[in-house]
Formats: sequence, C-alpha cells, structure tokens
Amino acid sequence: MGIGDDCAVLRLPPHHEVLVTTDFSLEGVHFRREWHSAASIGHRCLARGLSDIAAMGGEPRAAFLSLALPGKLPQAWVDGFLRGLLRLAGRFEVGLAGGDTAQSSGGVLADIIVLGSVPKGKAILRSGARPGDRIYVTGALGGSAAVLRKMMARPRRKLEPASFPQHFFPEPRVQLGRFLREKALASAMIDISDGLSTDLAHICEQSGVGAEIQGGAIPKAVMGKPAKQVDPRSALHGGEDYELLFTVPRRKNVPSRIAGVPITWIGRITGGRKILLRDEEGTREFRPQGWEHFK
Amino acid sequence: MGIGDDCAVLRLPPHHEVLVTTDFSLEGVHFRREWHSAASIGHRCLARGLSDIAAMGGEPRAAFLSLALPGKLPQAWVDGFLRGLLRLAGRFEVGLAGGDTAQSSGGVLADIIVLGSVPKGKAILRSGARPGDRIYVTGALGGSAAVLRKMMARPRRKLEPASFPQHFFPEPRVQLGRFLREKALASAMIDISDGLSTDLAHICEQSGVGAEIQGGAIPKAVMGKPAKQVDPRSALHGGEDYELLFTVPRRKNVPSRIAGVPITWIGRITGGRKILLRDEEGTREFRPQGWEHFK
Repeated sequence: MGIGDDCAVLRLPPHHEVLVTTDFSLEGVHFRREWHSAASIGHRCLARGLSDIAAMGGEPRAAFLSLALPGKLPQAWVDGFLRGLLRLAGRFEVGLAGGDTAQSSGGVLADIIVLGSVPKGKAILRSGARPGDRIYVTGALGGSAAVLRKMMARPRRKLEPASFPQHFFPEPRVQLGRFLREKALASAMIDISDGLSTDLAHICEQSGVGAEIQGGAIPKAVMGKPAKQVDPRSALHGGEDYELLFTVPRRKNVPSRIAGVPITWIGRITGGRKILLRDEEGTREFRPQGWEHFK
Repeated sequence: MGIGDDCAVLRLPPHHEVLVTTDFSLEGVHFRREWHSAASIGHRCLARGLSDIAAMGGEPRAAFLSLALPGKLPQAWVDGFLRGLLRLAGRFEVGLAGGDTAQSSGGVLADIIVLGSVPKGKAILRSGARPGDRIYVTGALGGSAAVLRKMMARPRRKLEPASFPQHFFPEPRVQLGRFLREKALASAMIDISDGLSTDLAHICEQSGVGAEIQGGAIPKAVMGKPAKQVDPRSALHGGEDYELLFTVPRRKNVPSRIAGVPITWIGRITGGRKILLRDEEGTREFRPQGWEHFK
C-alpha cells in the first residue's frame, strides 16, 4: 500500500518487530561496470540487504531503492540492473515498495533499504555468544574475495559471472537464518560480509568473549576449471561471501545441512578476550584484517 | 535496539503500520556547498523525510542515514552536517538508528530513510479527495524557491541562512499532519515538495478528480529586509517548502491555525478532471510545472 504516496505503508504480522538495514552499492567502491554485469550489480545490491535480515533470523518484507544514475548511462544497463535485483527480490517474495531516483554527476550510486520483521524479542543479535558455545559457518568461504583477486590481477579479462556465482550472484541465507531462529539454535549471529576474521571479532566484542578457531576446519570455497580450493587468506579474511557465522550452546544439536546448505563447526567461544587460530603451524592470534573492497 | 548489529530492531506501538520513505540529498542536485551551510544541508536532508511522514499523518520513529563523503572533506563540515541533522531529529524525538558510510569519488551523497508509524488503516493517502472537498495549505508558499532564485541570480553572494529559514531550515509539519489524522479531518494529503501545481496534480490524479484554485487566496511567503512577498510564480510552482496540501469534506470545520501554523482555504475539489486556476486575469488551466532543483 502507499504506492504513489509520500510513504510506503507496510502492515507487519502482529507481535513482530521491524528490522531495518541500509547498504550502499557505489560504482568504483563496491563494483566496477567493467567487471560486473548490470544484473550482477543489481543482484549484489539487494543481496547485501537480504543477508543482513538473514543474520538476525528475520523475514524480509520489502525493499526500497534509492538510485542515482549518470545521464549518459544506456537504458539497457538500467534494465539489466533492475532485472538482477528484481529476480532476487522475487525469489524471496520481497516487493520493491519505493525509493528515490536522481541524476548522478559521478558514477552509479545505489542505496538499498530492506525492511524485515521478526517475532518480538526473537531477533538473533551479535551479543549473545557465551563461553563454551560452538562456532559454525554456512557454506564455504573465500569465493567472493578470490574472484576479486583474479580480476585485480588481470583487470582486462572479463570473467563469466555464471562460473563464479560466489562473487557475482551470492546467495543470502534467509531460510537458513530463519530456521536457526525458529529452532532457537543460535545464541549469536552475523553475516560474513567483511570477512571471517573481522566478523568473528564483531561477535566476540559485542558478546564480551573470546574464541578459538580450528583453521583446518574452515570450509574453503571451490571454483574455476579445473575446480580448485581458494587460497587460505581469502577464506580467513575475504569479505562479501554473505555466509552466516553463528554460535550455538554446546548442548544443542546442529544439523549438518540446513535449507540445503552445509553447516561446519569451526571452533568455540572462550571466556578470554583473545581470538586464537589453531592450525598445523601452531596457535596464533587471529586478528581482523580489514576488508576494503577495491579502490 | 540492534546498534552494532546487522539490522536495527524497532518496536512499534501495537496495531500500528510502518511508514517508510527514502530521499536522496546529492551535492550539485539538491544542494551546493557554496550556498548551503553544512548544518542547513543536514537539516534539509532529514526534513525531506520527516515531511513525508507528516504528509501521511504519521509519527516519525527512527531515521537511517547512508552517507558517502569525498576523501578531502574537512571533518568540521561533517560535524556541522550531523549537528544540523541531529538537532532536527532531537526536536522530533527521532533517533538516528543506523545507516551506512562510504567514500565518494564525487561530491557528498546522502540518502535519508525515515521510518514512522500510524494506527492501522489511518494513513492519509493522496487518493482520498472527493468532489466538493475543500482544499487547504499550511503556512505560506514559495519562500524556498524564491531564495533559490536569488542565489541563482547572484551565485557568489552568500545568503545568511537564519534570515531565510524557508529555504535553509524548512520546518516539517509533523504535529500538524498528526492532528489532521487524529481528528479525521483530511480526506487526502501530500507535502509540497515539488510545488503546489505539481503536488495538487498528484492528489487529483490519485483521487481521480479535478480542482479549482482561487489564485488570490494562495498564501505567499514573506521574506527579506524590507519584508516582501515572493513572486507569484514561486508560490504557484516552487518546490521544497514542505508545507502540507490537504483536502477536507465540506461539512467538517478546519481551525484557522493548527500547531501554531496558519491554515488557508485555497479552493475545492471538482468532479471533472481539469485543474483550474481563477484569479483577476480570469480562469485558466493550472498545469504542473516541473520543479527541477538547480543544475
């Protein structure tokens, strides 16, 4: 309701709270038109917002798009962008309920706002992790960053988006996040948008705890032809995978797959403040390494 | 709740619906740093969103700001911008609950999202005007556009913001809009962001009606020293006044002031499709004239 009005009007289920997230997708910061197809840019734009809703265990309800476009942009690009965005929106039954448009004097500027909802008091926060909780990740990590590295190493080679879906068409884990909330499994959750090391640090900081990660257990993305595991650095620190990182009290059983996605146990929450990484080389501090997109 | 989380979590009063509005404020399109102080830009950025909530008869609940800044921008500018925005937010008890930040390769880019709420089914839409309804405006019109004309005519003269509040610090009519909803007075409402001619056309189109406006009745803004009424063109077509335009069934009495703001009866809704303007020069069609900001 409210299409053509000053505001969109949304009715939520009774006893639900509102979830709100906003995310920029800026040309030259979050994407490049030389590297990313219009459809991929539209998809990634919305995926960022849906993934934030997923990370709270929420259900996405509506999206709003503020879009500023350079005057000389071909209409076919805009159509492709919206097609990519709306295809993803359709799969999650999220309507595009409003937004704003303007002319940009620079590149393409998009700001996506996703509204979701969650039963009152049931949102999964970053702050609920407790010593002894087990740490899990969904899917496999590092795929998106490894593709970015590939493109940066050879900027003029255009990669086929369909062959590298981790980067070009990441899948927000909405059903999975909702399952964890409905079954009251996760004590804390975040989406891996900035990289495992950074996002784990967010959970530990908000929860006032430490962690110990088994490096060998971290599921690494596999991609390319012939299929190859990504480098460890991409898996440990690479952002924009949009997998979920969550903690579960030890007494609870976690399925090995949820909503078709493999779940991997990678470590545990500790009472200290340090985040440690254990692997064949020994034990060391697992420091967040900023994920800076590309410049 | 949810600060430091993937989403903000908002609890609304029971039996309320969510109102959502998003508005860009882009350097070179909606403001110029040479003309507008940082505080004015921050104020205007949020005022656009609050005014949309006001136009639905809603109550603003929270604001979200996505802000992309050029690398070389002085910190003092950012502080001034946020001060202007937060001062207005504070007056309406609206918290800044989240958003996003990024570096801009062009100018300052802000996208403001305001969430509000309204009791279920009580939002005042643009589509409710019926033949015979009287048409009202709040405050006085044309002040913002007349200031813009002044600046465009003499681009290097810097106007004192405090002397021209209509343009630099417009007042969103939140209490007034809420009063009209609580008293069930308005059948349709819109805020005058694009100009009277354009916004009246929106109401008529959405309601499937026509209108007749008494040109002489339109309240024109007064400003400058010595104080002078703005030109008729600014009052008829000028945007960004953020006054409210609303319709009321004939049998209902409308106070001459609401929340301290004068209310003026300027015409009536008709069963035709045309919008007519009557003044001393006769009767003619009152066509929407696009408000294009400045370029």
